[in-house]
Amino acid sequence: MARWNNAVASATELKNLRKDALYREAAKAFRRNGYHGTSLDEIAEGLGISKPTLYHYVKTKRDLLYQCHLAAAEQALSTVCQEDGLTGIERLRRTTSAYVRSMIGEQSYSVVILEEKSLSPVQLSTVVHERDRFEGALITIVLEGQQDGTIIPGEPRFAVFNVLGAVNWVTKWYRPNGSWDEAEVSEGVAGFVCRGLASPGVPIKGGRLLSIGD
Amino acid sequence: MARWNNAVASATELKNLRKDALYREAAKAFRRNGYHGTSLDEIAEGLGISKPTLYHYVKTKRDLLYQCHLAAAEQALSTVCQEDGLTGIERLRRTTSAYVRSMIGEQSYSVVILEEKSLSPVQLSTVVHERDRFEGALITIVLEGQQDGTIIPGEPRFAVFNVLGAVNWVTKWYRPNGSWDEAEVSEGVAGFVCRGLASPGVPIKGGRLLSIGD
Repeated sequence: MARWNNAVASATELKNLRKDALYREAAKAFRRNGYHGTSLDEIAEGLGISKPTLYHYVKTKRDLLYQCHLAAAEQALSTVCQEDGLTGIERLRRTTSAYVRSMIGEQSYSVVILEEKSLSPVQLSTVVHERDRFEGALITIVLEGQQDGTIIPGEPRFAVFNVLGAVNWVTKWYRPNGSWDEAEVSEGVAGFVCRGLASPGVPIKGGRLLSIGD
Repeated sequence: MARWNNAVASATELKNLRKDALYREAAKAFRRNGYHGTSLDEIAEGLGISKPTLYHYVKTKRDLLYQCHLAAAEQALSTVCQEDGLTGIERLRRTTSAYVRSMIGEQSYSVVILEEKSLSPVQLSTVVHERDRFEGALITIVLEGQQDGTIIPGEPRFAVFNVLGAVNWVTKWYRPNGSWDEAEVSEGVAGFVCRGLASPGVPIKGGRLLSIGD
């Protein structure tokens, strides 16, 4: 039942919102300083909460890394373009652009470059399984583009590995408050990977190389 | 049992050859298990030498990581194609192909995905400086291609970041004894990045997408 016209979150909603904020803060710290270079103290400090409060939401740094990986995998899946009536290459362009944007945006959970060995074996296999769903969605898009002739023939997994390299690497070099705009970077990277896979003569919408001086 | 992986030749070169074998073995272990997941004991074991012998060549695991990074940066620079009379895009294709091949080959020192925070600040700044030389060489090639019209206009650093993502990511997914051939993978990745940057209508030699079933 709606209370206060839903203007106030329920206790469960509140806990989830706090968890999300925690995972985003943790992911940001991990991306910046690496897993081993980050402490729970810093994360608590970044959120303006006490360490006992933080322990109410997560027991260990490893569990926090695990939760970030799961949230990032879910976020990745949510960027897969589901719109009808698109060519394969155009669906790939929209998906990769949305994916890059989600990774470099304020709401990112991305911890993609991290050493997976920091997770337990069970956690790792769950994370790999979840990530495989995004990889699988990209493979489906590539196959679709190969069927409609907008993507060149060849091993779809190989195509997707190339794409994932270019898009995941963005977290290594993108500086949130630098002179390069989030939207332009996302479109530019999507354009790069789509040109890399497009059949000769198939034009790629938008997605030029970043303009000099931007 | 083979000691030093049979990399040994004559007297004065001995120490350097042993060091090289040590760095390659360490890089392989770091790539497989991450920096924190690797022990000096395992590296010594992988080389068939005792730990005291290993300590004769390197004092700490961190120094070993540092040496791997330096060797990898030098190896990267050595792959830059210096041949005269090539277009920019063709020089880029040869360079990226040679670079990927050097990273996935038996002689690789590559530790490119690792958390840099494991290095000391001084080591890190040296490694970044050394890596910047390879990045700078790639930027020069992109500028050359933009001048001769084989590469599309736009921010060269952005172009190079896209290239580095696709090529560096190979160490994440390539399996040395899998069904995909080193040469084909190198050519395929080089083709992908060059199509991503080539001006419309400029053909890319070789470098198709990996054939299905190969």
